[in-house]
Amino acid sequence: MESFINKNWLIKNKTGEYLYHEVAADLPIIDYHNHLNPHHIAENKQFANLTELWIEHDPYKHRAMRINGIPENGITGSVSDFEKYQNWVSTIPKTLGNPLFHWSFLELKRIFDIDEMLSLKNAETIWETCNHKLQQEEFRTCSLIQKWKAEMLITSDDLLDNLESHKKIAYSSNEVKVLPSLRADSILDFGNPNYLDWIKKLEFEVNLTISGLSEFKEAIKIRLDYFAENGCLFADHALDSGFSFRSIEEKEAELLFRSIIQSQPMESKDIVKLNSFMLSYLGEEYGRRGWIMQLHMGAQRNTSSRLRKLVGPAGGFASIGKACDINSLTLFLDSLDKNGLLPETILYTLNPADNAALASLTGSFAEDGVVGKIQFGPAWWYNDHYAGIRKHLNDISSYGLLSTFIGMTTDSRSILSLSRHEYFRRILCDQIGGWMEEGKLPKDMVLLEQLIKDISYMNIKNKILKREKIWQE
Amino acid sequence: MESFINKNWLIKNKTGEYLYHEVAADLPIIDYHNHLNPHHIAENKQFANLTELWIEHDPYKHRAMRINGIPENGITGSVSDFEKYQNWVSTIPKTLGNPLFHWSFLELKRIFDIDEMLSLKNAETIWETCNHKLQQEEFRTCSLIQKWKAEMLITSDDLLDNLESHKKIAYSSNEVKVLPSLRADSILDFGNPNYLDWIKKLEFEVNLTISGLSEFKEAIKIRLDYFAENGCLFADHALDSGFSFRSIEEKEAELLFRSIIQSQPMESKDIVKLNSFMLSYLGEEYGRRGWIMQLHMGAQRNTSSRLRKLVGPAGGFASIGKACDINSLTLFLDSLDKNGLLPETILYTLNPADNAALASLTGSFAEDGVVGKIQFGPAWWYNDHYAGIRKHLNDISSYGLLSTFIGMTTDSRSILSLSRHEYFRRILCDQIGGWMEEGKLPKDMVLLEQLIKDISYMNIKNKILKREKIWQE
Amino acid sequence: MESFINKNWLIKNKTGEYLYHEVAADLPIIDYHNHLNPHHIAENKQFANLTELWIEHDPYKHRAMRINGIPENGITGSVSDFEKYQNWVSTIPKTLGNPLFHWSFLELKRIFDIDEMLSLKNAETIWETCNHKLQQEEFRTCSLIQKWKAEMLITSDDLLDNLESHKKIAYSSNEVKVLPSLRADSILDFGNPNYLDWIKKLEFEVNLTISGLSEFKEAIKIRLDYFAENGCLFADHALDSGFSFRSIEEKEAELLFRSIIQSQPMESKDIVKLNSFMLSYLGEEYGRRGWIMQLHMGAQRNTSSRLRKLVGPAGGFASIGKACDINSLTLFLDSLDKNGLLPETILYTLNPADNAALASLTGSFAEDGVVGKIQFGPAWWYNDHYAGIRKHLNDISSYGLLSTFIGMTTDSRSILSLSRHEYFRRILCDQIGGWMEEGKLPKDMVLLEQLIKDISYMNIKNKILKREKIWQE
Repeated sequence: MESFINKNWLIKNKTGEYLYHEVAADLPIIDYHNHLNPHHIAENKQFANLTELWIEHDPYKHRAMRINGIPENGITGSVSDFEKYQNWVSTIPKTLGNPLFHWSFLELKRIFDIDEMLSLKNAETIWETCNHKLQQEEFRTCSLIQKWKAEMLITSDDLLDNLESHKKIAYSSNEVKVLPSLRADSILDFGNPNYLDWIKKLEFEVNLTISGLSEFKEAIKIRLDYFAENGCLFADHALDSGFSFRSIEEKEAELLFRSIIQSQPMESKDIVKLNSFMLSYLGEEYGRRGWIMQLHMGAQRNTSSRLRKLVGPAGGFASIGKACDINSLTLFLDSLDKNGLLPETILYTLNPADNAALASLTGSFAEDGVVGKIQFGPAWWYNDHYAGIRKHLNDISSYGLLSTFIGMTTDSRSILSLSRHEYFRRILCDQIGGWMEEGKLPKDMVLLEQLIKDISYMNIKNKILKREKIWQE
Repeated sequence: MESFINKNWLIKNKTGEYLYHEVAADLPIIDYHNHLNPHHIAENKQFANLTELWIEHDPYKHRAMRINGIPENGITGSVSDFEKYQNWVSTIPKTLGNPLFHWSFLELKRIFDIDEMLSLKNAETIWETCNHKLQQEEFRTCSLIQKWKAEMLITSDDLLDNLESHKKIAYSSNEVKVLPSLRADSILDFGNPNYLDWIKKLEFEVNLTISGLSEFKEAIKIRLDYFAENGCLFADHALDSGFSFRSIEEKEAELLFRSIIQSQPMESKDIVKLNSFMLSYLGEEYGRRGWIMQLHMGAQRNTSSRLRKLVGPAGGFASIGKACDINSLTLFLDSLDKNGLLPETILYTLNPADNAALASLTGSFAEDGVVGKIQFGPAWWYNDHYAGIRKHLNDISSYGLLSTFIGMTTDSRSILSLSRHEYFRRILCDQIGGWMEEGKLPKDMVLLEQLIKDISYMNIKNKILKREKIWQE
Repeated sequence: MESFINKNWLIKNKTGEYLYHEVAADLPIIDYHNHLNPHHIAENKQFANLTELWIEHDPYKHRAMRINGIPENGITGSVSDFEKYQNWVSTIPKTLGNPLFHWSFLELKRIFDIDEMLSLKNAETIWETCNHKLQQEEFRTCSLIQKWKAEMLITSDDLLDNLESHKKIAYSSNEVKVLPSLRADSILDFGNPNYLDWIKKLEFEVNLTISGLSEFKEAIKIRLDYFAENGCLFADHALDSGFSFRSIEEKEAELLFRSIIQSQPMESKDIVKLNSFMLSYLGEEYGRRGWIMQLHMGAQRNTSSRLRKLVGPAGGFASIGKACDINSLTLFLDSLDKNGLLPETILYTLNPADNAALASLTGSFAEDGVVGKIQFGPAWWYNDHYAGIRKHLNDISSYGLLSTFIGMTTDSRSILSLSRHEYFRRILCDQIGGWMEEGKLPKDMVLLEQLIKDISYMNIKNKILKREKIWQE
């Protein structure tokens, strides 16, 4: 029986096959936004078994097992790693049509060279084969990363992270560049009951007492500079479902911030205002530093509070939230643009009903000499499936300029997810090849090869090169 | 000329043809949510003519005739049945591309074996042929139902319905099982000027005086138990466009309910609160009884008040409303889940912009041992067309587990609509077969046959069997 | 090398080829809503060069150049026309996949008979060839319009426009009929700081002092009658993102309007109310005159205030806004329908997430004897691309009656955009032909030819003929 993941898997036309094999397949990977653990890379972690590598930290798989009725204890609980593995194996055939089915076989094929369809019949053999390999040197973290031809990985780090692992990697002989980026949500988490503890840690870290807004801003700046010194080029905000923007004056923000640090109760509309103010402040600071700002919109993170208590906030039970409030988003971006400090921005949405709006927004702000200043980032999270990627490519083409798109990033916690760059590139080449063969694109292979190369690699590479140049000057 | 409804109608690949003819076509039908009239089944109604069977109670057809400019009197008014039929016949060619065109010919073909394209030319002949047949024994209601291989039909009944027809059918020799289900909207219709009349009827029915919330809840419980005794396994709420959820304490709900029964004017935000409270109460009662809760979201029922006055609320001029407020929906579901009383739930939306969100929500709540606890129900109402069904199958695959999907139900008032199970199965088999032939699914026919069987029949069958078992214990 | 725009461009099936070449291609064009400059037609304007004709007034191209990083001065600034042209030429290959790529080559092919791919290599030669042609008589405005087989063009004009150019054209030997239509936004622009200046101009124009609502209404009526006398059959409102409708009594509207003319500060909710009241008033006046009302919904016009200051409000940086508030929309339509004065209405949306809702709304209001009373207008503005048109045709088929659709209009400022009727018709014929070959439509060429003819030309023609007849009586 032919392997499911065969040579021209997911590519249905000759032009697409050519573009994939001759252009896309061998390009290096720049994964510009993910949640990989830098400690694992710094220490070149070895994985105990397939469950630790493949299942334990993958909320997508947990979610699928839950839908399949597997008891929570068999997913995230106290059963053995082998049982968790078996639970996942028994769930795989139930994922037919879901990207998990594709990803699972792609990961097994590319890392462990497994062609068979994994099922309860061969589960034990495969468990042993893989675990055996995982004990070998070339299956430790850094070797696994190199299998994907990764050139650069950009992790996602809290303002208070010390970035020691990033430093260690930078000084090592590791060929893959691993840079930090700022996940800025903790800065704006004013409604969190532990927010003042976080402020105390910030005070300690920067050796400043924060009694008002100006010290808060000062403290943040010190940390942003620290991130910049360590190669940070990107920042990131989660603008969850319900995000709203209301601009206020510094004076009002000062009063609101003082309420926060004095633990005074605050109305939700005041939190919105303070959030808006600080978001603009941070955006400007990113702009000043030439960083790229990422906005991840539309997640509905509060669903089952029972599961949240049981498994933690990243347990895979978040859902897609309301469509984006475009008016708030443009007010926010304009608050920066007015002052000439709008950074290059990547918009992501979890609700695909937003696709057209966000893709069209790429033409609403601009800067002389900057190609693709506002990006509609790749199909994010639950949208990162076959149809979602196609729809995204189609929307960005129809409402923006596909040729300026910076392409795929995994946003994943797992090094195996780097396989999704192959997934993305196959779909991209199939789509572009198909469009050409249908007469929607000209039969100009020079143009099309350039397009594939730019989206797969060069567009993001150029953005980073430009910044490193400035940074080195 | 070949018949329009030919053997492989709507199926464009060999695998799909195989899956349809060898697996799907002969499976029985479980229509788990419809608005069939149980009296018609109990009395084995005979239809006077084609208009009574086919047109008079079909708001889809009325709507199409209105768009086509047919005067209202010629649709729902005083003209003869034959004229109404002619008006519909003249409208049919104008429905090219709409599911009405497909359904109409499928219904004529399967019930009356008519292959010709119905048009004004042959309208009179076909009118006579069909009316002649309708006078025969094998064209009465129960025989028509049997033509579709229906195994179980679940109707939609008000809390105050006496369910006499269901009892009568249960004791008859009828091979099709006909169960009631609770359409619970009248319970929460607090803004209705006739609400107190409904309360009076409820008081009479349960022999209780309702002067406060606890008696109201008690009265409802009595009726829920009555429904359960008569085989009810499902309840249903219309969460129309604009639905919002705000949880309150029992004390506040008590005050609000007393305002209602004392006919005091109420602000709309208080109605939202009371509605939310009672929705949670009902959800918990369904959970306690092991019922399945259905939520039909996103209808915009208030459109033309002129047509509403003329033809009544179900006249076919409702429209698609705003996208769902996902935050309200998750708050509602979580209010039940917190207490361990979240019933299995089927989400339907009239706005397809909600598809991704609702399909992803199927992974946000879970229960040990329950497969597919939260269902994204089939493409509902206006979405139940060729492209809508394909999109729905695609969305449920991409964001959830298609294999756990409980499949089609008609939600229709007409026994002819049972043909839509064939429509659905053809599209399903074409899509799955196509995906396999394109390499998106593995060439594993055992898996694919199981998938088709589960979605067409077994998934819903298993949910019902499980409940009947508990119920019989 | 074969021309990119070849005979069967964008048509992938034999039936579609037949329908396009035998039915659609030679039908005249009725462009029932555009922003062509009537002065240019009246004076039969000659264009200085390709930039003036092709680039200078095209915000789509400006937008693409901005995304491509071209400095603003090179787009709308002080550089030479040739440099602007070069900037556009260098951007063209970056538009692969965007409709601009298609439109650009279609326009060059149909007007200048250019088959080559325009690039920086041949840019200068093509610049000279085209500019040379533009000096010839047959490349002046009226001849260009005739190249498209345009039969009628309907422009978009402010209430205070004197319509002199329309009169001049009407009395000329011009074969193309050019009618005005009312762009009514200035009437409702209550939040505009220059609103009172506009009122003064209105007073002057109609020779009335406007001190209250009744005089305001009187003044408007005088102008509506003037438009009607000059052949106006359509009015148009922009219901931008955030549109909300709240009906109020005349008394309250009177007070609010007096606040406006007395320059008193107004809360935004009061502007919504006054806007709603006047919208209903205007709608009724359109209804009385038998006009068709157009509603353009969902634009987010406030994005970059920096670009707005630099280039003006129509600079191409507007974006797609929030999905439509369907409840407000139905309240508005019902406010007219209740009084029997709902005009025929064309709904347009900039947010394609609204498609299903608006297509379904075509069946929610009706009038005896009027076919397609509520229209879901063609894919608008940023949606007017290959996939957008297909999606629109699919949605209108699935949720409404495609056969009653009035088809394409350009909504463009450029006479070259009339080529989009060809673009639309090719996609339409491909889609209908494809549906037939897949068995979704019957093999009845008489029906299908009629369908193509009706959508391309006859449906809008009939609506206009009916009105002109009434108007001539």
